[in-house]
Amino acid sequence: MNKAMQEVLFDFIAKYVSLTADEKNAIVSLDIFHSFKKGVVLLKEGQKSKNSYFVLKGCIRAYYVLDGEEKTTAFYTEMEALTPPCVISKTPSEYYLNCIEDSIILISNSDMEAEMNSKFPKFDLMCKMLAEELLAKQRIDFDEFKTSSPEQRYLNLLQKRPDLIQRVPQHQLASYLGIKPQSLSRLRARILEKSKQ
Amino acid sequence: MNKAMQEVLFDFIAKYVSLTADEKNAIVSLDIFHSFKKGVVLLKEGQKSKNSYFVLKGCIRAYYVLDGEEKTTAFYTEMEALTPPCVISKTPSEYYLNCIEDSIILISNSDMEAEMNSKFPKFDLMCKMLAEELLAKQRIDFDEFKTSSPEQRYLNLLQKRPDLIQRVPQHQLASYLGIKPQSLSRLRARILEKSKQ
Repeated sequence: MNKAMQEVLFDFIAKYVSLTADEKNAIVSLDIFHSFKKGVVLLKEGQKSKNSYFVLKGCIRAYYVLDGEEKTTAFYTEMEALTPPCVISKTPSEYYLNCIEDSIILISNSDMEAEMNSKFPKFDLMCKMLAEELLAKQRIDFDEFKTSSPEQRYLNLLQKRPDLIQRVPQHQLASYLGIKPQSLSRLRARILEKSKQ
Repeated sequence: MNKAMQEVLFDFIAKYVSLTADEKNAIVSLDIFHSFKKGVVLLKEGQKSKNSYFVLKGCIRAYYVLDGEEKTTAFYTEMEALTPPCVISKTPSEYYLNCIEDSIILISNSDMEAEMNSKFPKFDLMCKMLAEELLAKQRIDFDEFKTSSPEQRYLNLLQKRPDLIQRVPQHQLASYLGIKPQSLSRLRARILEKSKQ
């Protein structure tokens, strides 16, 4: 993996804890950096897994297949982490994960995390802070989804993750916003019309 | 606080880590058990807080006031924990928390958690396991909400948390399910009708 991606990771970690040169070397030696081409499926429905993911570059999509139809529930982009619920519950996955762009992703599991934690206790601290942040962020996202109209959800996304609207196919975006693709088109047209006035 | 509630807590903790008598005494001495009457507001919009909550008995409701209207987003009942997002972000709260039943609630903050962690390292382990479980559960709840129709959401609740349907006022339940109170009434009538056939 190229040095640039390592630096991206170290810059991210530095927001939480400081790393020594030894610690940086230990991270690199863990062999957690992986490249995936657009379209690669990382996890399938029914599959068991121990893996957590952290996106350094690219985009992971989470989706369910319900009655033969894909329902997209999440997009994970740069500096976002996810542990699929099936990893925690130790049951087969209920959803799929795929890369919707060429991506560079860190993959770790609890054994690797235990190894890191035993070497660097502050790693545990970072994981705790990350988990707390994730919990809060996810709670806010869920609350906003529940309390917003489809139009508000779209405007909210436009404000918070404008890049996503460019990067993601419209039908996946519609599903993610909990609306039908044709509703999304109408909604976008309406917003565009308002902005012209 | 009565012994019975302490035992409820110890039984819950025992699912994660084993506790010695000394550790149990230390927990009791922390003075984290609190009783609240139905209707008490624990947190207000605009307020800053460092508190996390764990429900031993009763029910905490989370709600926003948007355009003068209450929007209920969560109910926390027995053995459920919450840390409001404002505690993590260190910003004023965006929502309210109140007790919708007489409740017995553990209240802790990061200072108390740090004290516990320094005395009993396995406490940290328990918090980590709890945070992981919560993250997974919340993710699943959000995904189910996104991918379900209002009727599916109601049936899902009926299966997962049947007690809630009895305990919670209908207009709060409707808001929690993301539907209008009259839609919930119609939906319930429809389900009842089907079950008779």
